[in-house]
Amino acid sequence: MALDYERDPQAIYDRSFATVEAEADLSGLPAALWPVAVRLIHASGMVEIAPDIEGSDDLVERATAALRRGAPVLCDCEMVRAGVIRRLLPAENEVLTSIAAPETPARAKEIANTRSAAAVELWRPRLDGAVVAIGNAPTALFHLLELLDEGWPRPAAILGFPVGFVGAAESKAELARHSRCVPFLTLQGRRGGSAMASAAVNALAILAARP
Amino acid sequence: MALDYERDPQAIYDRSFATVEAEADLSGLPAALWPVAVRLIHASGMVEIAPDIEGSDDLVERATAALRRGAPVLCDCEMVRAGVIRRLLPAENEVLTSIAAPETPARAKEIANTRSAAAVELWRPRLDGAVVAIGNAPTALFHLLELLDEGWPRPAAILGFPVGFVGAAESKAELARHSRCVPFLTLQGRRGGSAMASAAVNALAILAARP
Repeated sequence: MALDYERDPQAIYDRSFATVEAEADLSGLPAALWPVAVRLIHASGMVEIAPDIEGSDDLVERATAALRRGAPVLCDCEMVRAGVIRRLLPAENEVLTSIAAPETPARAKEIANTRSAAAVELWRPRLDGAVVAIGNAPTALFHLLELLDEGWPRPAAILGFPVGFVGAAESKAELARHSRCVPFLTLQGRRGGSAMASAAVNALAILAARP
Repeated sequence: MALDYERDPQAIYDRSFATVEAEADLSGLPAALWPVAVRLIHASGMVEIAPDIEGSDDLVERATAALRRGAPVLCDCEMVRAGVIRRLLPAENEVLTSIAAPETPARAKEIANTRSAAAVELWRPRLDGAVVAIGNAPTALFHLLELLDEGWPRPAAILGFPVGFVGAAESKAELARHSRCVPFLTLQGRRGGSAMASAAVNALAILAARP
């Protein structure tokens, strides 16, 4: 028996974004962030996150310029990396994660922190001008901010979407309070996740490809 | 400057699950589903999803038995596959996705449906007794139900978590209304996503490994 549902990809896409635009109240956000916010809402199915989205006025300008320059996308976990749509990236940008690197567990012990935090340290040679996408671990975001305080190279943008009950809200509040002069985008509170982090990357990639 | 946050992985894990158990109201669910529900909430950071979780009484029993037998996990997208923690699986189970298979685009045209729906057809040789995890596409879930109506082999379980504004709520309502005699787990409404689908697989893998 054939069920009754929309099967046309373009119609699904169009109706999805039309629904987001009809229902989501983005009035609290800088207009430059709207296309990215729309994509976060689209990825999560939640128009109700709109008031919790927060970001720098120059996030889109700086992140798209970085992507066009060929900046790598540094991800805190494999799910974020899997969610980045490669063909959208404007310069065949590398999409990297270091969570599974062989040196990560030992480094985590040395710094008495999680593997996610230790993995951030392996970004060092690629961090300058990179686009950072964190969709899982609050400790990765916290530790990145600590390293920036120590004078580590500055990424072009931090897309901060850790999720969960311990440290997620706190790490994102710290990012928004003082992003160490790095343009950022985040979702305040416990909600977040890899789908939002990769949706932010994909939105910025689309914007970067526009003339 | 060192920031003040929890860095110990075990403490983070314990506090996270303690928060879920303290705040989430699972009283509307069969007790057998509680461990899986807790992990869905943990992955999403949202205790408020509890009332929308719905599943078969025998989902855990049937899915864990399948995993112990070595059933493959069939995923609708790469993000779900990336979120499955391989070392938790009890029988080195394969974790497969067919969305990127070379025959998918042509098959999508033939059936006038999305690539996600077409990819489901490529599961046929592996579908009997498999664990299906859908975290993205409503059309994948709808088409799977149509194929079951046509007499295709039955999976051991359907973990149905499509997300978004077009068809997600409808496909999950159809799954819950009539799951074609397959045990299922779902989250009603627009919310869902790959992190939930893989969290469900991971929860079942942990339960399958227990004596």
